[in-house]
Amino acid sequence: MVMEGREFNIDKMKNFSEWYNTVIYAADLVDNRYNVQGFIVHKPWSMYVFKKLYRLFEAELEKDGHKPTSFPTVIPEENFEIEKEHAEGFTPNVFWITEKGNEKLKRKLALRPTSETAMYQMYSLWIRSYTDLPLKLYQSCTVFRNESETNPFFRGREFMWIEAHDVFATEEEARKQIVKDMRISTKVLNENLGIACLFFQRPKWDTFPGAEHTYATDVMMPDGKTLQVASTHYLGQNFAKAFSIRFKDRDGNDLHAYQTCYGPGIWRIMAAIISTHGDNKGLIFPPAVAPIDIVIIPILKSGKNNENVIKKCHEIKEILKEYRVEVDERDKTPGFKYSEWELKGVPFRIEIGEKEVSENKATIVPRDVKQRLQIKIDELKNEIEKQKKEMTDRLREKSQSYLNSHIKNAESLDEIKKILDEGSYARVNFHSIDADGKECADILQYETKGGKVRGILIGKNEEPFGSKKCVICGKPAKHVVYIARQY
Amino acid sequence: MVMEGREFNIDKMKNFSEWYNTVIYAADLVDNRYNVQGFIVHKPWSMYVFKKLYRLFEAELEKDGHKPTSFPTVIPEENFEIEKEHAEGFTPNVFWITEKGNEKLKRKLALRPTSETAMYQMYSLWIRSYTDLPLKLYQSCTVFRNESETNPFFRGREFMWIEAHDVFATEEEARKQIVKDMRISTKVLNENLGIACLFFQRPKWDTFPGAEHTYATDVMMPDGKTLQVASTHYLGQNFAKAFSIRFKDRDGNDLHAYQTCYGPGIWRIMAAIISTHGDNKGLIFPPAVAPIDIVIIPILKSGKNNENVIKKCHEIKEILKEYRVEVDERDKTPGFKYSEWELKGVPFRIEIGEKEVSENKATIVPRDVKQRLQIKIDELKNEIEKQKKEMTDRLREKSQSYLNSHIKNAESLDEIKKILDEGSYARVNFHSIDADGKECADILQYETKGGKVRGILIGKNEEPFGSKKCVICGKPAKHVVYIARQY
Repeated sequence: MVMEGREFNIDKMKNFSEWYNTVIYAADLVDNRYNVQGFIVHKPWSMYVFKKLYRLFEAELEKDGHKPTSFPTVIPEENFEIEKEHAEGFTPNVFWITEKGNEKLKRKLALRPTSETAMYQMYSLWIRSYTDLPLKLYQSCTVFRNESETNPFFRGREFMWIEAHDVFATEEEARKQIVKDMRISTKVLNENLGIACLFFQRPKWDTFPGAEHTYATDVMMPDGKTLQVASTHYLGQNFAKAFSIRFKDRDGNDLHAYQTCYGPGIWRIMAAIISTHGDNKGLIFPPAVAPIDIVIIPILKSGKNNENVIKKCHEIKEILKEYRVEVDERDKTPGFKYSEWELKGVPFRIEIGEKEVSENKATIVPRDVKQRLQIKIDELKNEIEKQKKEMTDRLREKSQSYLNSHIKNAESLDEIKKILDEGSYARVNFHSIDADGKECADILQYETKGGKVRGILIGKNEEPFGSKKCVICGKPAKHVVYIARQY
Repeated sequence: MVMEGREFNIDKMKNFSEWYNTVIYAADLVDNRYNVQGFIVHKPWSMYVFKKLYRLFEAELEKDGHKPTSFPTVIPEENFEIEKEHAEGFTPNVFWITEKGNEKLKRKLALRPTSETAMYQMYSLWIRSYTDLPLKLYQSCTVFRNESETNPFFRGREFMWIEAHDVFATEEEARKQIVKDMRISTKVLNENLGIACLFFQRPKWDTFPGAEHTYATDVMMPDGKTLQVASTHYLGQNFAKAFSIRFKDRDGNDLHAYQTCYGPGIWRIMAAIISTHGDNKGLIFPPAVAPIDIVIIPILKSGKNNENVIKKCHEIKEILKEYRVEVDERDKTPGFKYSEWELKGVPFRIEIGEKEVSENKATIVPRDVKQRLQIKIDELKNEIEKQKKEMTDRLREKSQSYLNSHIKNAESLDEIKKILDEGSYARVNFHSIDADGKECADILQYETKGGKVRGILIGKNEEPFGSKKCVICGKPAKHVVYIARQY
């Protein structure tokens, strides 16, 4: 799928699906020819990014007091029977291990679809007293679900994520953790990766199986559909009661604990990075996670001795050794190389030719804008650091202003349909996000061909506007909600 | 399993098995109460170490030109049928996935026991020309085998490792890679972790299923038994032929490639760290992978205002902020804290009391020796860096001299038995490590209750000594081999 000699050029905004499903192979991120459907091979160009992405989240989680753990990939069937709603939500899509060698297993083992039922039985052994709380652990791993439709980084039968499972003595502390989790998502997604997000409290009917409430982070894709990239579930005491996670408080009372779990969807965040920042020429990786930071391209004159140019390229690589830098010395034209590294999304290209050598300068070309900077070699290191920050800022501003201009108020079904079809989120007055709003949500989804109530913005207390009546049933609206089709 | 108020004290050399099976729980590395036999839960205290250990190896692999990849955890049954020897070696212990939800799968999927059969079918798609070679990829993952006997970090049904799978155009390059792999093992195990190792070419009958030769790294455990912690398999063209990994050379000839695979056993290296360096008081983590580098313990006087002592502890933590440092302010005696952090293997303890505050000094106590160093606060940072290096050197020298003094020549079965029983390796003249030596090896193993031929030292060309006759059959010996019981 390498585009030998052909320039990548697909209109991302007009043909997003074609763009995405071409660029992930053309840029050599994955191979989908593995012989189990829905399972893919991650190639080095995506793995460098995943490793950095994991580290960004792990660092933030650890700063927030989480510690690393690793639980078995397999979970006995009986564990799923403990929390009924959770079991109903997950067991239909579980892969089951039933044999070892030629022997039948006495009981089936699930490939973990998520780890509540693996972890909480151990939590009930570890937690005895209020002094054992809070307990905040995370694991970086893959999970397995028999999804019917799959697409790399959006939805797969095995995908990468982090799951953090926290236990608290009080509801108040548990609720505070939700805000902390949102801050971690904001820090990484928005500050480090330059992706604009919305944070929603999901409606009751769209809550994680077994949870009381779900809080989630949505990113708008170029086609206006929305992608959930992270979520925190407030579990209340549901699992604590099912798995007997109890502790003695200061006064010796035996109490059930309160729990939250937080899942940054590492795979989906990759989809968000690709889709948000890429352009018609290919990928644009934000500097925080780029597989390589800089590619240096020697501009050689045919028939001449270009030794000094090649030498200068390697000198610059040495000057920039704290970055991941590659000198592209292949026997190809500069134009071919420019296109290929643009397709692959490297943040900065440095061009070195006779002119740069004689002036002791480097020409820097950032991937995201039409700009060519002449920088003195001894200012190069500082300049790259500055440019990294500026590129991240530009990407963030672009993403934010796109999102801002694609949220539109609607007061009727027709308006909602029109807004969704043009690729925006519709902002509407809505009856309720509790169970009694479900009927309106079903009508809305049917009438708008998939428009879903994503929930209310967290911490904004948005007041109904205009008529202040539910856009579907016409009753007084309790909430302002956002409608989008979803991935 | 925390040793509330009781000092850990078990004679490691006399009762190694008891020591090991107590310390891993007492120091809170793992929990073995997970409800699937042979699968364990990794707690934070081991996970910090595993994360560092993975990064050490990944950095060395990348320096050597390997790139990261991630393949699916599941492998279809049919893939195992492609290389017959390999299949026979692995399928008896494979866990099989046979159902998804309530449905039967059309074909069984294995939980990967190792990834040759997953990766090489893709390699055959990726490799077309000599310009695609060498191809050097690694993945950090867990693998699954239905082992009958399990013990944390020695042998488990799911365990952590890295597998690097390399493809070359020529046998010569492939053979060179074996040496490079050994260098990576030496760098991490010996230089970074201070563990003395021996590098063996294994006898023919102890070769990886499907490989031509196996080269392996052994570490001596305190009971004299040996633990294989890493191995490189020279696959020749066996898998290339089975999986059709072919390339066109410069002249357009269609050729089969040559392959190697290298597996640093991350889990087993943890077992080696624990067993090699620990002492009767508990664990000793080498500074390169310690979960925390330094614990600061305030020495408080009861009934006094100790504010200045606590303040100084936090000042020092700030000075040493590039390290992972913990100030232990718990309401426990210093003696209790000393024992606990010694048990947990933290490399350096810093004690701060009135005296240290008034003299603007810190008392540093390295975990591995009876030493108390008074260091001026403004020299502390440099001193810690120096001390880290010195501790690693001490650990390495101790490990090396123990190994050196526990290798003994033997010229009869009786001598071998005596040497193995006293906890040493026996060094003997041996008929052959090719297939024709197997009979002697079987006799030796039977007669010595498990003594195994570990192979010949790599790159040493050791000449037979004394009688120069095979210690078993009395025929002229081709090799000097090492005999040990094994984990």
